[in-house]
Amino acid sequence: MAQPQQSEGAEVPPLRVGMVGYAFMGAAHSQGWRTVGRVFDLPRRPVLAAVCGRDADAVRRAADRHGWAAAETDWRVLIERDDVDLVDICTPGDSHAEIALAALAAGKHVLCEKPLANTVEEAQVMTRAAEEAFERGQLAMVGFNYRRVPATALARRMVAEGRLGRLRHVRVTYLQDWLVDPQFPLTWRLRREQAGSGSLGDLGAHIIDLAQYLAGEPLAGVSALTETFVRERPLAEGTVKGLAAVSGTGTGQVTVDDAALFTGRFTSGALASFEATRYATGRKNALRIELNGEHGSLAFDLERLNELSYHDATEPAAHAGFRRILVTEPDHPYLDAWWPPGHGLGYEHTFVHQARDLVHAIAEGRRPEPSFADGLQVQRVLAAVEESAEKNSVYTPIAV
Amino acid sequence: MAQPQQSEGAEVPPLRVGMVGYAFMGAAHSQGWRTVGRVFDLPRRPVLAAVCGRDADAVRRAADRHGWAAAETDWRVLIERDDVDLVDICTPGDSHAEIALAALAAGKHVLCEKPLANTVEEAQVMTRAAEEAFERGQLAMVGFNYRRVPATALARRMVAEGRLGRLRHVRVTYLQDWLVDPQFPLTWRLRREQAGSGSLGDLGAHIIDLAQYLAGEPLAGVSALTETFVRERPLAEGTVKGLAAVSGTGTGQVTVDDAALFTGRFTSGALASFEATRYATGRKNALRIELNGEHGSLAFDLERLNELSYHDATEPAAHAGFRRILVTEPDHPYLDAWWPPGHGLGYEHTFVHQARDLVHAIAEGRRPEPSFADGLQVQRVLAAVEESAEKNSVYTPIAV
Amino acid sequence: MAQPQQSEGAEVPPLRVGMVGYAFMGAAHSQGWRTVGRVFDLPRRPVLAAVCGRDADAVRRAADRHGWAAAETDWRVLIERDDVDLVDICTPGDSHAEIALAALAAGKHVLCEKPLANTVEEAQVMTRAAEEAFERGQLAMVGFNYRRVPATALARRMVAEGRLGRLRHVRVTYLQDWLVDPQFPLTWRLRREQAGSGSLGDLGAHIIDLAQYLAGEPLAGVSALTETFVRERPLAEGTVKGLAAVSGTGTGQVTVDDAALFTGRFTSGALASFEATRYATGRKNALRIELNGEHGSLAFDLERLNELSYHDATEPAAHAGFRRILVTEPDHPYLDAWWPPGHGLGYEHTFVHQARDLVHAIAEGRRPEPSFADGLQVQRVLAAVEESAEKNSVYTPIAV
Amino acid sequence: MAQPQQSEGAEVPPLRVGMVGYAFMGAAHSQGWRTVGRVFDLPRRPVLAAVCGRDADAVRRAADRHGWAAAETDWRVLIERDDVDLVDICTPGDSHAEIALAALAAGKHVLCEKPLANTVEEAQVMTRAAEEAFERGQLAMVGFNYRRVPATALARRMVAEGRLGRLRHVRVTYLQDWLVDPQFPLTWRLRREQAGSGSLGDLGAHIIDLAQYLAGEPLAGVSALTETFVRERPLAEGTVKGLAAVSGTGTGQVTVDDAALFTGRFTSGALASFEATRYATGRKNALRIELNGEHGSLAFDLERLNELSYHDATEPAAHAGFRRILVTEPDHPYLDAWWPPGHGLGYEHTFVHQARDLVHAIAEGRRPEPSFADGLQVQRVLAAVEESAEKNSVYTPIAV
Repeated sequence: MAQPQQSEGAEVPPLRVGMVGYAFMGAAHSQGWRTVGRVFDLPRRPVLAAVCGRDADAVRRAADRHGWAAAETDWRVLIERDDVDLVDICTPGDSHAEIALAALAAGKHVLCEKPLANTVEEAQVMTRAAEEAFERGQLAMVGFNYRRVPATALARRMVAEGRLGRLRHVRVTYLQDWLVDPQFPLTWRLRREQAGSGSLGDLGAHIIDLAQYLAGEPLAGVSALTETFVRERPLAEGTVKGLAAVSGTGTGQVTVDDAALFTGRFTSGALASFEATRYATGRKNALRIELNGEHGSLAFDLERLNELSYHDATEPAAHAGFRRILVTEPDHPYLDAWWPPGHGLGYEHTFVHQARDLVHAIAEGRRPEPSFADGLQVQRVLAAVEESAEKNSVYTPIAV
Repeated sequence: MAQPQQSEGAEVPPLRVGMVGYAFMGAAHSQGWRTVGRVFDLPRRPVLAAVCGRDADAVRRAADRHGWAAAETDWRVLIERDDVDLVDICTPGDSHAEIALAALAAGKHVLCEKPLANTVEEAQVMTRAAEEAFERGQLAMVGFNYRRVPATALARRMVAEGRLGRLRHVRVTYLQDWLVDPQFPLTWRLRREQAGSGSLGDLGAHIIDLAQYLAGEPLAGVSALTETFVRERPLAEGTVKGLAAVSGTGTGQVTVDDAALFTGRFTSGALASFEATRYATGRKNALRIELNGEHGSLAFDLERLNELSYHDATEPAAHAGFRRILVTEPDHPYLDAWWPPGHGLGYEHTFVHQARDLVHAIAEGRRPEPSFADGLQVQRVLAAVEESAEKNSVYTPIAV
Repeated sequence: MAQPQQSEGAEVPPLRVGMVGYAFMGAAHSQGWRTVGRVFDLPRRPVLAAVCGRDADAVRRAADRHGWAAAETDWRVLIERDDVDLVDICTPGDSHAEIALAALAAGKHVLCEKPLANTVEEAQVMTRAAEEAFERGQLAMVGFNYRRVPATALARRMVAEGRLGRLRHVRVTYLQDWLVDPQFPLTWRLRREQAGSGSLGDLGAHIIDLAQYLAGEPLAGVSALTETFVRERPLAEGTVKGLAAVSGTGTGQVTVDDAALFTGRFTSGALASFEATRYATGRKNALRIELNGEHGSLAFDLERLNELSYHDATEPAAHAGFRRILVTEPDHPYLDAWWPPGHGLGYEHTFVHQARDLVHAIAEGRRPEPSFADGLQVQRVLAAVEESAEKNSVYTPIAV
Repeated sequence: MAQPQQSEGAEVPPLRVGMVGYAFMGAAHSQGWRTVGRVFDLPRRPVLAAVCGRDADAVRRAADRHGWAAAETDWRVLIERDDVDLVDICTPGDSHAEIALAALAAGKHVLCEKPLANTVEEAQVMTRAAEEAFERGQLAMVGFNYRRVPATALARRMVAEGRLGRLRHVRVTYLQDWLVDPQFPLTWRLRREQAGSGSLGDLGAHIIDLAQYLAGEPLAGVSALTETFVRERPLAEGTVKGLAAVSGTGTGQVTVDDAALFTGRFTSGALASFEATRYATGRKNALRIELNGEHGSLAFDLERLNELSYHDATEPAAHAGFRRILVTEPDHPYLDAWWPPGHGLGYEHTFVHQARDLVHAIAEGRRPEPSFADGLQVQRVLAAVEESAEKNSVYTPIAV
């Protein structure tokens, strides 16, 4: 962990954060905001100003637990607070557009969890609003945190350096297994009206963004199959595995996909293969991506997030092979501020790094990455996947 | 390795093999026929009677090298020899139908390399002929040797025992990289008239058969993308990496696919994902298959062929995980005849096991597996893949 | 991450921490103290009261960076502060005894980094003092944080459940490579007067404690080889890789071991093998331990700290194999408070867990583990290793 | 697999082999002799002339099974046969010296299974006889087949090229688990009079030779612990897991070691760690060796014998990592004669390669490697290990 630098004369100005939502993502973002200034030298000092949720008691407890100074029950009040510079949106996708637009209108910077929205139309409006706000000096970022794993950031750096050469293949899966049991209850994530889609929007959005980010180019079209394996699930009360159940007795309809498979082409002609599912028994969080280029290949597995696999095809065949880079060296992205080599990081640090990058972008007036436009591009791919799946898998170009 | 059993009174009758073709597959089949009786107790004793090729000198040298008693230059002569009981066809796919039909007509058993044929029509005729020949006591098998890796045979046994329960996903790749260099010369494998197709028929045929075999059910339909990344390649003389180059100067057209990706549905509703390519830099022979079922999962990688990965989802989550079964125990398929635990086998032993299974089937009059009908089913999937790829990836049912 | 529970009527009382030292270990402990109450429900609320270091400016900056309310430059003042309940000692080993004894005498709880001391004699005095303090209600724990990796804690639980049966072998290495380059400068860790020993005390102490902890029994004797490969190193100024260089020009003597290898016997008769080195090129933090028992085996690698490998030998051989348990399930130690399955933790979380366990022990008046007596036992093994190495590797019993 | 070369005018002269013993090693050697000429271009053509065993019926059946032309029941007769050029000794270690000396006296070349002998004295006599025979044009090789895994041969080549630089560490284990069950019966391998020693001579001999071969230098001294965990085992009849049981009822004494651990120093000062055991539950054939040098490291695991792990420390830290070389390229040792890249070999191929190297050495009159002198050196290390273990683990120099 970096030792503190000589303090400079001037005080570092605060960046006061107001967060909407405090479930899984809210907890993760809290960890990010609370830790980032303890590890990195920053041009603005994050302050956990206020958190917002509908249940007054619950949000008060969440504020205490996660270290937020104030609690609000109405997000419209939160975004109007004078002591909030940035609104961090951690709610389900159906409320992203409304909150983000209002926050930008109120003059705040915005960090919005992925997927950016539940529809292309919403995402378009948000992107336009973000562009206009940028002219006024406000920044808007979408929370594709898997760009902030040191290993994926290193992969991006290596692709950008030309180490893979002309790209031929990208294959990527995001495999989980928490729905394998047909008796697992219905939750909000299995209802289209809230979640937008199932594996596709939840897991697929991550891998679409990551694939385009690492490849350095957008997808041009896709051909897709989706499936809902279990169409009715028991209703229940309270939360199951941290998710709010759809309350009731008897069973309810699953109205989103359980799994989505699609192939596609990047604009350069490279081929891509995607699979997102919650039925891959034994795979807990297997976001795996491999890129094959003319001069080399890279592979990453989120279940071993401190490692990046690299094959350098310019070496003599007798000594070539996929090498396991332990991404814990000072020269690796984000690592100069952390622990000695071999002392790995975890999932939550992606949120620390996301906070770091956003703070720097705000201080420097740089367009943040991923921008809302990046979020919109993912939304367009998601829409093309759904369209292709409805149209008998026919190859469907991504609208530009 | 099994010690020889007490010799029985009666002599074991011979099974005299005549092989057509002596390149890569011919060498591998020779190893199989020569070794099988040294390791396994067999009801018939394989004899390497004669090998056939067009170049008299070369076939003579091949006969000496691989241990065949005689050499022929005309396959029509070979199949008429009285001292040949079984014709083993190791030529490119465009000659399979003609040779196999003639051999069956001549009263011989047949082992035919994969793919069974270059078209569905040929495969249908061959399958009909094989059915009729079976009535006359002749057997016909297709050479999908990857069913004979002990680990895949174990996987099949475990699926058949119900260890996976209801199947949800099958994902399978066959990744090689020998075409990554655009200067690699044009060979017969890159010409449609001889090879039928590219990665699809060569690698895709293997994984289609293996996936259907392990799943225990056929594919119902597919949606496909294919691509030829490098459309012109240099002509050359002689052989490159063991393959006959298309001779000449300048360049010639690649008329087959370089890569084929397809998704699909099994008849049970399980989803499948396939990828076959020769452009996966750093992947040498990465036939990888994973099956996810309600009660467990299995995974296999041909580059580590002595291992099978198994997740038992009926165990408590606290102790569950993918286990690496080292498939070298006496209780594993084929292993009681080999070495002590931990002393692994190699690629070529699949041909020993193929020979073993065929010899038993012949002696016992059992229908061999995979049959020509299985080869036809693979051919139908290949045809549906090509049709889908031509029709903008539209989902294409497999004809029955 | 656990959602906050219904707040109870009574306020949770604080536990005010004063930390001595703020380098690598100080940063890690700060992270632990700052985070633990945000993740776990605790009976006492940790407060980062004051941090202490000799350089007033530097300690002030460290306090700001890591979130300590006050800064002190004299540890004697720190331990007398009324607003400090617990003294956390993160200094080099040569000062542990003095500070810990004074802190206990001042009525404070103590957390002392490993190794407990630089000599058995010091450790004995400290252990006696800790015993007496326990009678007065003060607790003393030694900081063997690798007991707090969820995977090692799970391993301990599985051994205690009898899953391995009678223990036969323990083999353990701790491999790093930061001294491979002979031009790496001399630092305090390479001088006996401060560090006590080299790889042995730094890395060996960790693996001795972990091996005894997992085995559930002490070592009975050892036979050892130690070596200093590079006996002179350049002097330098400032810090190198976070370590204070021995300042000067020219070169200075390395007065500790570079590597230590030893074999040994546990009291049950199980055999053990240990290796600690800073010259294992390419191994960054490879603390690896494997235990083989009559009924099963366990293996762990700190470079993949979210995984535990387990072989259950009571299963049929046909399906047995080392399984990779992804230690991220709610049923795993510490995990009910963290992220969903598959979302891994990192190195620093061992310090969060250490803080959690110590807070609970203090609140409940339980003897903490590892106690100073455990630290003394490690010290005795270290002394026996050094004695054996000096006496031509002769087997040397551990004094009791 | 290499295609046969243009046949040369002159016929290749035969090399007629007579083999003593036909159990596990006899079967493996038979496979080697039968296959080598089918794969490699050789200057002498191996002929399986005669096999010898005490039981006339059994040896006759073994001859038929493994393809030997004749069967003998007296090894003294075998070595006098005119149609035998080379005597291949596959018996237990207690008969090696007598047979080898007689064969050399009879003017034959000799291949002797490891360990060369059961005592240093025998090995010395054998080495002297081999030296004298070499003057007469006879060659003598000892069967350390693990030098002939392509991956270990590649490792040796890389060490010899200087890729590791100055060597610091060699750590090596040979872990099996077939004695874990205390009810496993007593076999000849557990009796000192036949086997010489237990894990030490069986497994330890392999890893001592391999370590010295890869390091390119001898061990200078060792410090050892040995243990017999289970001292009485049931008597039984017949064979268990391919080993002749000590026949009888009740139980009998185990008179060899179950496990042997030792540390040591190479003559260059590099440190070494060895462990050989038959009680490592779940490890079937885990011969693992790692070498760490100033410029790089190599690691090998016999359970994944087609792979070699290599770390190149001269690369920038940001891209360095252990790479997995799939040792199946034409440029790898032995591989130009085999299959395309990625099509792995198995355990038995080490015997094919051993036969190849010996045939070449004989044809070219070169001293074979490993020579009897190499076998003697291993014997000296084994003796030093036993002496150290008896003398309280004191460091014991290897006699020269």
